[in-house]
Amino acid sequence: MSKLTHFNPQGRARMVDVSAKDDTERMAVAAGEIRMAVQTLEAIKTGSLKKGDVLAVAQVAGIMAAKNTAALIPMCHPLFLTGVDIDFTIDEVNSRVIIKAAVKTTGKTGVEMEALTAVSAAALTIYDMCKAIDKGMIIGDIRLLEKKGGKGGHYIRQGEPK
Amino acid sequence: MSKLTHFNPQGRARMVDVSAKDDTERMAVAAGEIRMAVQTLEAIKTGSLKKGDVLAVAQVAGIMAAKNTAALIPMCHPLFLTGVDIDFTIDEVNSRVIIKAAVKTTGKTGVEMEALTAVSAAALTIYDMCKAIDKGMIIGDIRLLEKKGGKGGHYIRQGEPK
Amino acid sequence: MSKLTHFNPQGRARMVDVSAKDDTERMAVAAGEIRMAVQTLEAIKTGSLKKGDVLAVAQVAGIMAAKNTAALIPMCHPLFLTGVDIDFTIDEVNSRVIIKAAVKTTGKTGVEMEALTAVSAAALTIYDMCKAIDKGMIIGDIRLLEKKGGKGGHYIRQGEPK
Amino acid sequence: MSKLTHFNPQGRARMVDVSAKDDTERMAVAAGEIRMAVQTLEAIKTGSLKKGDVLAVAQVAGIMAAKNTAALIPMCHPLFLTGVDIDFTIDEVNSRVIIKAAVKTTGKTGVEMEALTAVSAAALTIYDMCKAIDKGMIIGDIRLLEKKGGKGGHYIRQGEPK
Amino acid sequence: MSKLTHFNPQGRARMVDVSAKDDTERMAVAAGEIRMAVQTLEAIKTGSLKKGDVLAVAQVAGIMAAKNTAALIPMCHPLFLTGVDIDFTIDEVNSRVIIKAAVKTTGKTGVEMEALTAVSAAALTIYDMCKAIDKGMIIGDIRLLEKKGGKGGHYIRQGEPK
Amino acid sequence: MSKLTHFNPQGRARMVDVSAKDDTERMAVAAGEIRMAVQTLEAIKTGSLKKGDVLAVAQVAGIMAAKNTAALIPMCHPLFLTGVDIDFTIDEVNSRVIIKAAVKTTGKTGVEMEALTAVSAAALTIYDMCKAIDKGMIIGDIRLLEKKGGKGGHYIRQGEPK
Repeated sequence: MSKLTHFNPQGRARMVDVSAKDDTERMAVAAGEIRMAVQTLEAIKTGSLKKGDVLAVAQVAGIMAAKNTAALIPMCHPLFLTGVDIDFTIDEVNSRVIIKAAVKTTGKTGVEMEALTAVSAAALTIYDMCKAIDKGMIIGDIRLLEKKGGKGGHYIRQGEPK
Repeated sequence: MSKLTHFNPQGRARMVDVSAKDDTERMAVAAGEIRMAVQTLEAIKTGSLKKGDVLAVAQVAGIMAAKNTAALIPMCHPLFLTGVDIDFTIDEVNSRVIIKAAVKTTGKTGVEMEALTAVSAAALTIYDMCKAIDKGMIIGDIRLLEKKGGKGGHYIRQGEPK
Repeated sequence: MSKLTHFNPQGRARMVDVSAKDDTERMAVAAGEIRMAVQTLEAIKTGSLKKGDVLAVAQVAGIMAAKNTAALIPMCHPLFLTGVDIDFTIDEVNSRVIIKAAVKTTGKTGVEMEALTAVSAAALTIYDMCKAIDKGMIIGDIRLLEKKGGKGGHYIRQGEPK
Repeated sequence: MSKLTHFNPQGRARMVDVSAKDDTERMAVAAGEIRMAVQTLEAIKTGSLKKGDVLAVAQVAGIMAAKNTAALIPMCHPLFLTGVDIDFTIDEVNSRVIIKAAVKTTGKTGVEMEALTAVSAAALTIYDMCKAIDKGMIIGDIRLLEKKGGKGGHYIRQGEPK
Repeated sequence: MSKLTHFNPQGRARMVDVSAKDDTERMAVAAGEIRMAVQTLEAIKTGSLKKGDVLAVAQVAGIMAAKNTAALIPMCHPLFLTGVDIDFTIDEVNSRVIIKAAVKTTGKTGVEMEALTAVSAAALTIYDMCKAIDKGMIIGDIRLLEKKGGKGGHYIRQGEPK
Repeated sequence: MSKLTHFNPQGRARMVDVSAKDDTERMAVAAGEIRMAVQTLEAIKTGSLKKGDVLAVAQVAGIMAAKNTAALIPMCHPLFLTGVDIDFTIDEVNSRVIIKAAVKTTGKTGVEMEALTAVSAAALTIYDMCKAIDKGMIIGDIRLLEKKGGKGGHYIRQGEPK
């Protein structure tokens, strides 16, 4: 059986010791989506062309959440991020907003959690700002797309569209 | 077109004024899932029967995140929660952990965001603690199941299994 | 001599006891400005008409800071805000952005600090986002314009333009 | 056997549901001490008579920690404190600083944890500011002295000096 | 027109990528003031000579805010500060307190925002602790005085008194 | 008289300048205890053998608090920890839980405060989760056991059992 490294000999959680790891440049890209009613997507789209931009707020929320990841995820190492970017695609065919976050650091551990957390917080913020008109939205497909740096090498998720 | 209430006359985001609303008892239930490889689920299951309990850490993360929601979601009103509970179902058929969070408060606004945030943080924590053995996990289907209290009345999501 | 109430008999700071005060509706409005080079104001203005909206980010920062006031100002009572709004005026004559924040709560203490903190954080965010092109910006004139609710009654700052 | 209420039917931690409890006025007093070398106490005492006041910093730390308790203690309910005070006694006979914290709120749960957390943070801050001259200090005897309000009634610790 | 670097190709805010920058020693000095009624300044002055020291609390608030800057200012990079100091000048001629903050780090980005934030938080804390006797205080003239380290070289604000 | 380094020439607190110090590997171990009634210890012990594990929650609280130390202790330098572990010993003879925390970093200052804070938060969490059945618990004997790295060399507390 695969062994989880997050537990100490007492069987309780610890923050894994990474002292011996090298500081290397690292990046991670994560993605996710929030599916919604057609008119909700319309309301977001109209706002982002003019003012009243839901996605601008979600962008800020995602970036701030990335910086706050170690306070949110108990066993996650604190890192000082050197770059965070988030982008949104309005997909009218499937009535959803696609969220993609890229995070960089120079450090001893990867930034997957920061990228995934940025996506999650951006999606939750979209939900919050649109829930008055649509309680049925669904946040989903939050996953790691790519990861570089460190001993683990370059991970690219299989089966994603280029 | 439906109108988003989160914007001021300048077209920028505001925290909606709820001063005139009554303090009522409110609750919300949200759910979500994290899908994973069979052996990852096995590792979680073994741990949660003995020690090394990933889900115990995810539980704490979810509860703490619920309390922290207003700091994470920009336009979300601060609330003082009167109860938070999270439960996990290990679904071996679909190789996933199902996460359900119930949140209560007495206040002027609902606790949907707190319940959805609790589910998201619990899922991210499971990802964090298992990512050494499985980078391919997918967090999804995060949605509101039920909501009670306030002028909006009782919302129950349609099409969910009883 | 006027007496400061924030000190205990030992002469050290305390959070003043407001247990006996009534919960009343309260509001406060504060204002401030950030002065800058003409071309910096131009860059902000262009962005806020199209995309790249510095003020949208400052708006989010101000609102989140208002919610976070009690964690920033040591003797400030925690409050759960029922509404926060911020608005910006681009004043080309004096080459500055004027920031105004309005905050509401129902509680035992006023929300002056929340309004002043919102203005400060919004101004600092504008500085942060424009400092690459203008290090000389000056944040100033941060003051309370109005305050309502509680035993202190209705305060309106004298000498302000209507 | 006495039963812990902080666990759900799955046996995992929850934030206990206090929705049905009344909002009542509540207070708690906690105390603790930090024992140190004679010359360390002397340095603190000299500083607190003139400037360089270690205890003034510890006071601020304790008050801010009290407000932050629900973010520090996982299952602790968030509360809006209405008053926090801390006082210090320099006990030369036993070469220690005695710390006492009193906390008040109006709410559904008690403020024991806030008082105990204030004492702990004040003690840790004294340690931090004096550790360059004394690594051997010991923080101890952190306990609840008194608690009022709520169904539990009035608790006064037995065996304490009046 | 000067170009703001804080926006991505979608025109939304990002945390600028500084991965390629070198870690260098950096420092920044910022200043500001809070103007007040003569008797308010008198109350602060009396307190800071004896006990009841408003400025001691403002000092702690400023230092803690400096450490918290990246959580307050959305696009600001997290940094591990290596030193923070704040000093106050009571200027009776102009009935104000002058606040000066110096911040140091070794890192990839400057610490201007940390210094400006420290000044702002110290000023807000003075306001908070004196507002019971003077609601008319004005916080102003918050500006960068000096900045060293990084590619930008040594910035010294012109026109300041030596 | 020994001199405290945490004060500036004005006699007020500062965050000591460590810019000139080298980044070295550092570790610290701290310990403490919480004494309680026999039946409280029994309840903890039973829970930790099955489910309902108070110590699992305390473990998470201690680790998260270690990461949060610089936000809790005013003059403490922010550090990014590379490892945190906590272990518990149930001592039935003396009816107490013994808590030990080990923290590692690579940085310019030591991690004593992080280890001591982890122990304190873990103890407070045990108190919180058991206070319904035992208000008389006492947290004590919080002390530094060992410290390595930096100019100060290797500190080992005297008089501890091996």
